[in-house]
Amino acid sequence: MAAVYTYSEESTHVRRSVLRELLAHAVDPNIISLATGLPSSQLLPVERFNECVNTVVSRDGARALQYSPQFVPLREWIADYMTRRGVKSTPDNILITNGCQHGLTLMSRLFLNPGDTAVVEQVTFIGIEHATGGRGATLRPIPSDLDTGADMDALEAAFKQEPHPKLAIIIPDFHNPLGISITPEKRQRAAQLANTYGIPLVEDDPYSPLRFIGDIPQPIKSYDTDGFVFYLGSFSKILAPGVRCGWIVGPSEVIRNLERLREAHDLETSTLIQRSITEFLSRGWLEEHLTQLNAANHLRRDTLLAALDNHLGQYATWTEPEGGIFIWVTLPEQIDTWDMIKEAIDNKVVYIPGGEFSVVGGYRNTMRLNFSNVANDKIAEGIQRLAAVIEKRL
Amino acid sequence: MAAVYTYSEESTHVRRSVLRELLAHAVDPNIISLATGLPSSQLLPVERFNECVNTVVSRDGARALQYSPQFVPLREWIADYMTRRGVKSTPDNILITNGCQHGLTLMSRLFLNPGDTAVVEQVTFIGIEHATGGRGATLRPIPSDLDTGADMDALEAAFKQEPHPKLAIIIPDFHNPLGISITPEKRQRAAQLANTYGIPLVEDDPYSPLRFIGDIPQPIKSYDTDGFVFYLGSFSKILAPGVRCGWIVGPSEVIRNLERLREAHDLETSTLIQRSITEFLSRGWLEEHLTQLNAANHLRRDTLLAALDNHLGQYATWTEPEGGIFIWVTLPEQIDTWDMIKEAIDNKVVYIPGGEFSVVGGYRNTMRLNFSNVANDKIAEGIQRLAAVIEKRL
Repeated sequence: MAAVYTYSEESTHVRRSVLRELLAHAVDPNIISLATGLPSSQLLPVERFNECVNTVVSRDGARALQYSPQFVPLREWIADYMTRRGVKSTPDNILITNGCQHGLTLMSRLFLNPGDTAVVEQVTFIGIEHATGGRGATLRPIPSDLDTGADMDALEAAFKQEPHPKLAIIIPDFHNPLGISITPEKRQRAAQLANTYGIPLVEDDPYSPLRFIGDIPQPIKSYDTDGFVFYLGSFSKILAPGVRCGWIVGPSEVIRNLERLREAHDLETSTLIQRSITEFLSRGWLEEHLTQLNAANHLRRDTLLAALDNHLGQYATWTEPEGGIFIWVTLPEQIDTWDMIKEAIDNKVVYIPGGEFSVVGGYRNTMRLNFSNVANDKIAEGIQRLAAVIEKRL
Repeated sequence: MAAVYTYSEESTHVRRSVLRELLAHAVDPNIISLATGLPSSQLLPVERFNECVNTVVSRDGARALQYSPQFVPLREWIADYMTRRGVKSTPDNILITNGCQHGLTLMSRLFLNPGDTAVVEQVTFIGIEHATGGRGATLRPIPSDLDTGADMDALEAAFKQEPHPKLAIIIPDFHNPLGISITPEKRQRAAQLANTYGIPLVEDDPYSPLRFIGDIPQPIKSYDTDGFVFYLGSFSKILAPGVRCGWIVGPSEVIRNLERLREAHDLETSTLIQRSITEFLSRGWLEEHLTQLNAANHLRRDTLLAALDNHLGQYATWTEPEGGIFIWVTLPEQIDTWDMIKEAIDNKVVYIPGGEFSVVGGYRNTMRLNFSNVANDKIAEGIQRLAAVIEKRL
């Protein structure tokens, strides 16, 4: 007799991740994948990271593999880095996490009870929905403008509503999936709203250092006055996803509480990994790596924009991000990117249907394209294949 | 004006971990620490693990640092290992975690809603209380016998109670903090009770391979009939805590659900770590390491037992574990191990007060002593210092 299990509400909430399932298709070498959220595999600093592991092991010995509190030199480096970006920080303001997804989970656990309201962008990273909705929160979506980012009037309206939301999460830079960034004026207003209403606002920022045009804007957190803005960073996209390491910036009181919560969840991030990252950073290798990475991403973005112009220019529109790894494409109303995904895969090209990122449904005529983990000389061919599938439906 | 935050119920539940705070004292070289839960720092296989990292990086290149689904060869190794231990498994039965604490968190998230009842031993690992209580569960404690382990009549009584508990968690081997193991008869009965009542029973087992006397008994999971027993294992105590890697064994249906839940929490365990562990295992180095580790632990346990006999034999009793890393000491009623901890630290010895592990209060005349991470030639001196503090209070 088959066992029948009674699962918790939390566990039944989490949707099957289409992104993760589509990753399976990305390994067939004949498919041109514009679907992933991966940094370029060719450019991952594998040898240099290994050199750092070797240095850490010979220098630190057993300390590199023993239990350990959060590694202070890593917190120090991050505090200095955030201070340089306009967020005055000490190591007490930094919590080491297993990456931004882990940060989203911890922030949701810290501030949300089941039934509370969380404000999220209506088109947003699926992991934000998992962290808040998985916590049992009711989502209050706000729209985003494709030129200026999340709608601040809608954020204020959501904050005013009774009962007040207990958390808000927005993506400031090179939005996943939209590719857009929030203007400085809106950043300042976001921080002001969080502090006026006393509602924690989380800035989920894995991408801002991936800017290849212009200067990196100050985080929303840099405009914080009373400690209601929280910044999430990650080494996944700027160093390597396989290190599983990121950070949260917040007031020391909140960081202490997050640290207890984090210890209760899974104790800590591998100290070998924390120490090896610190070695990588202290050698100045992150800057060198970012220079190389952003140059490659810039080239690929330009190639993708040109291909879109050539092949979809007659009927589609798209965002033109100044960094990051994603472009958001809007097709004519009659095109359903979910309906055509199987045919696209048969035609050896894959993308993510835009509706997958919507917490309000719709967006069926949109798609997310990645340009960081596809060879530059495959991009035009990929878009040509895509255009062939779309044009049959026009 | 200082910010006032409204925290979630979950976050306010988690107690400050005295264990973690006491670790701070363990770094003073003049203090003999019997307080940690650490494997021996001297014996951590640092060079060998580093060699595995080097091999993985040169062989696998970017795949070692990219996003990746759970690493199948590691699941395969664990499935074979569990099968050898009497738990017939395939890779589909294995979920990779960040260690047992992470496994406890995931199992609690999967099966408990806030307000549900969870059965736990009344003296148990603090992390079990954090995982279940932090989830908002009401704890239903059951006693443990110092010779035979968790009380199965009490477990059945708890399972019978309405509304039925939704989860039970017990530690089968070298119990933290008691040092005891559950008899084979009780294991069989535990599995039978879980299946009869259809209540998931979690076997939290980081320690069983650390057996230095006799053969490793079959896990409770080996007596499972209908899939209601779940096994948690970890590389922390048998390889190194700094790898932050463990596993859950269960029916494939449940493992798939756990995998989604785990991805929503923090995506995955570092693929570099997963691959390096797999390399370590495939070289047969775990067996070699365990042989060395268990010989050292055996010697240290014997030294500790002799020292207890010499210095506390007149008035104390203790468990005599055949493996693991902990001994549980019961002192005369009038001794309060919390009250005397500061004086013990002043006298350059530290332990964990037993009451810290109780979910029902009491146990103030008990303490947990660790023998794995204290030099063999310090143990007698440590117990002598401890006896001096105790004897002032007799």
